[in-house]
Amino acid sequence: MWRPDRDSKTPLYRQIADYMEQRISFGELPPGSILPSERKLAEQLGVNRSTVVQAYDDLRASGMIESATGSGTRVSQHKWGMAQKHPPNWSRYVEGGTFLPNLPLMRRIRESIRRGDPAVNFASGELAPELSPNEAIRGLMAGRPFREQMGYGDPQGYGKLRIALASFLREHRGIRATDDSILVTSGSQQSLYLITQCLLSPGDAIAIENPSYCYSLPMFQSAGLRLFGLPVDKRGVDPEHIQSLYQKHRIRMVFLNPIFQNPTGTVVDEERKKELVACCERLGIPIVEDDPFGLTSLNEDRQPLPMKAADPNGTVLYVGSLSKIAASGLRIGWIVAPQSVINRLADAREQMDFGLSVFPQWIAAHFLESRDLRPHLMRLRAALRSRRDVMAEALRRELSGEIAFDLPEGGLNLWCKVRRPVHDFALLENGIKKGVLFVPGSVYGSESGFVRLTYARPRTEDIEPGIAKFAEALRLTLGT
Amino acid sequence: MWRPDRDSKTPLYRQIADYMEQRISFGELPPGSILPSERKLAEQLGVNRSTVVQAYDDLRASGMIESATGSGTRVSQHKWGMAQKHPPNWSRYVEGGTFLPNLPLMRRIRESIRRGDPAVNFASGELAPELSPNEAIRGLMAGRPFREQMGYGDPQGYGKLRIALASFLREHRGIRATDDSILVTSGSQQSLYLITQCLLSPGDAIAIENPSYCYSLPMFQSAGLRLFGLPVDKRGVDPEHIQSLYQKHRIRMVFLNPIFQNPTGTVVDEERKKELVACCERLGIPIVEDDPFGLTSLNEDRQPLPMKAADPNGTVLYVGSLSKIAASGLRIGWIVAPQSVINRLADAREQMDFGLSVFPQWIAAHFLESRDLRPHLMRLRAALRSRRDVMAEALRRELSGEIAFDLPEGGLNLWCKVRRPVHDFALLENGIKKGVLFVPGSVYGSESGFVRLTYARPRTEDIEPGIAKFAEALRLTLGT
Repeated sequence: MWRPDRDSKTPLYRQIADYMEQRISFGELPPGSILPSERKLAEQLGVNRSTVVQAYDDLRASGMIESATGSGTRVSQHKWGMAQKHPPNWSRYVEGGTFLPNLPLMRRIRESIRRGDPAVNFASGELAPELSPNEAIRGLMAGRPFREQMGYGDPQGYGKLRIALASFLREHRGIRATDDSILVTSGSQQSLYLITQCLLSPGDAIAIENPSYCYSLPMFQSAGLRLFGLPVDKRGVDPEHIQSLYQKHRIRMVFLNPIFQNPTGTVVDEERKKELVACCERLGIPIVEDDPFGLTSLNEDRQPLPMKAADPNGTVLYVGSLSKIAASGLRIGWIVAPQSVINRLADAREQMDFGLSVFPQWIAAHFLESRDLRPHLMRLRAALRSRRDVMAEALRRELSGEIAFDLPEGGLNLWCKVRRPVHDFALLENGIKKGVLFVPGSVYGSESGFVRLTYARPRTEDIEPGIAKFAEALRLTLGT
Repeated sequence: MWRPDRDSKTPLYRQIADYMEQRISFGELPPGSILPSERKLAEQLGVNRSTVVQAYDDLRASGMIESATGSGTRVSQHKWGMAQKHPPNWSRYVEGGTFLPNLPLMRRIRESIRRGDPAVNFASGELAPELSPNEAIRGLMAGRPFREQMGYGDPQGYGKLRIALASFLREHRGIRATDDSILVTSGSQQSLYLITQCLLSPGDAIAIENPSYCYSLPMFQSAGLRLFGLPVDKRGVDPEHIQSLYQKHRIRMVFLNPIFQNPTGTVVDEERKKELVACCERLGIPIVEDDPFGLTSLNEDRQPLPMKAADPNGTVLYVGSLSKIAASGLRIGWIVAPQSVINRLADAREQMDFGLSVFPQWIAAHFLESRDLRPHLMRLRAALRSRRDVMAEALRRELSGEIAFDLPEGGLNLWCKVRRPVHDFALLENGIKKGVLFVPGSVYGSESGFVRLTYARPRTEDIEPGIAKFAEALRLTLGT
């Protein structure tokens, strides 16, 4: 995003006015466009409000923009001799479409991150940059000549990556799959999107865990699905709840994240996993198993296996990715599913984006087959363990008695309950004021008073100060 | 795709039976799955039909699969002690969903290409591998250390690529845009997909050129849009037709490919372009301008500029990509649009795939800024010119009097009319028999008797023999 240049001789307000004028004359802010308020633009550009006031004054004086009490500032309608012209009414277009926008709260958090605010970020559920296998990937790119075809690839994914994934899944996740039944996607997000668009129809009922990451994704509503929650207890989801939702609502699919569930961190035990698969097999409904955190167990000797590892009848559509264990910027995920499902999804994804770029697929294939993979995973787990411990320790010190949490044994997040009644959205607002970001639990469908704190994302040294800010925000919200 | 190993000591039929058994036991071909016919599987695997017959016999003998007259061969239902289990009825799932499958004909062509059939490929609208800037890209990857963040990126696209694109568009396409109003996409396909999903609602009427590439994309129907065709003549589309469609059907958007239109190769002249923009401005409806071929003009001195180059009011949503001028395997495209549109589309694409991988974006940014770009484009045009000339010459020699075409001045395709009445789908079937692939015109909505022959895709030395095969197929179809 553009920012004025503080080292330039041109005054800041003039740079801003010039930039806006340019965007107006390029048609990027067409006649009638609503401009951000002076306060908001100042915040976005990191300047004083008075600087923006001066820039807007200039633009107003030249007739480029106009302000009316109560309706804010807009690009002038009649600037361009457009008396008989009607530029498209963009607000009607952007408010249309079947695809719903992201939750306002999530957009707010992301905008704050995008602006580069100095807040400690416990909100983004991803790895800190230093936890990615940066050296290994750099080495790969520099060390071997890229000799692959650069044309449209196989819509199911680059062949060598699918072969590498088949051995990776066998060795690390206990999943037996041939490369023919693996679809490479742009991460779990696209896997879930393809499943909702291609295998379900508007009006279909589906079951998701409650709380669940799925609640934060408007894609289910965009697809016109009816969502029913399955309560998550310490053992995960109870098959009886699936059975009962099936009887009541004829649910057509069950979405589960059995290992280090997002956001609760719960791990479903082996027996329960078998019961869940057996239950869905009996009912004849597929399970979508999202397994992004399977290899993040902080207990080196115990990496729990997914349900897909025991699924000879193909009831489970398995969704995995490299985002939470290597680098989200690779945008490499996959689906393992019966052949007819893979064919359907590959055909649809070809229409949506014509498949993934060969470059990240080539990198991922070589990384998965390299000797760097195992040491990387061990380093990653050690780093996650130490971050988790720093966060837990800081929470106990700062907020002992105020909050409750189970120490997660894997994943990237700590799920935290505030003991006294608190409105978690109000808590977030105070967090932003104090300089700390996290995700309120109600975004994931939980009752108010829960928060998800990601320990994987901030630098280790920022975790303690971040928790101190969180404690301040909490006290402010509780009025103590 | 798996193929039996001809050098192995294990007989081919046994390898096939083992592979199928494995896939059945992994759940990739669940109980009840319909298997390909013996003939079709033999074709896919490149073996004799008798080999597959023997493999299926083995699998049948072990109870793994079963055949019934009239209903083909299936994986056994009762093999796995599944008396009370009902694996999901996958056919009901894969036939559901709101997203429509690709046209059967396009799937047929692509399957044939994917199998690696030796046919000459005039069907894929892309560059031959040797026309991509392979050396330049290899040099980029090996020559500079990759030091970018590997986390989730900006959903609008990697900042440095957007800056590189802003100068590229200014310099090469006459488009003035700031990097803030550019959205990086996974190619034009995703750009069009985002526009149809986010800015239009089911039931909306839109206008597209007839014939047009758009007709081959079920995405418009998937979005529930009503399509109305605008006839393409030598000057492109007539604004009066837009006006009249607006009056009759209240069309909400117009999709145009004004430069080297796909499939006809038509270029809209400067005056007509202005009239088109003025017409849509008067009506207040946006134009989606698809400009993939803008830099492929075979006349070095005359690279026609897009409508977006004269669009101060932001009526044009400009869609471009590197697929037809550099490498489709980069999967890099872009949209230039008013800010409110960019915000809406970036938000939606974040939900669909969480943005593009940073790797191809990093490569594209460096390539666009490199000294390799201009020489690459010049080499590309020279190569396209020579391929076009070889094809035109071969067509004249082989089919003089039988066909008619205008020599395209850019783009990748030659649009060819068969003078005598011919059913273009029948012609394709005969083409496949003779070993040549192309796209029948009716896929693009034209009347029967047209074909699109891509000269950019095959090797130069395959063009003449390919046209000879095409001539054979045509004579066979016409019965001459």
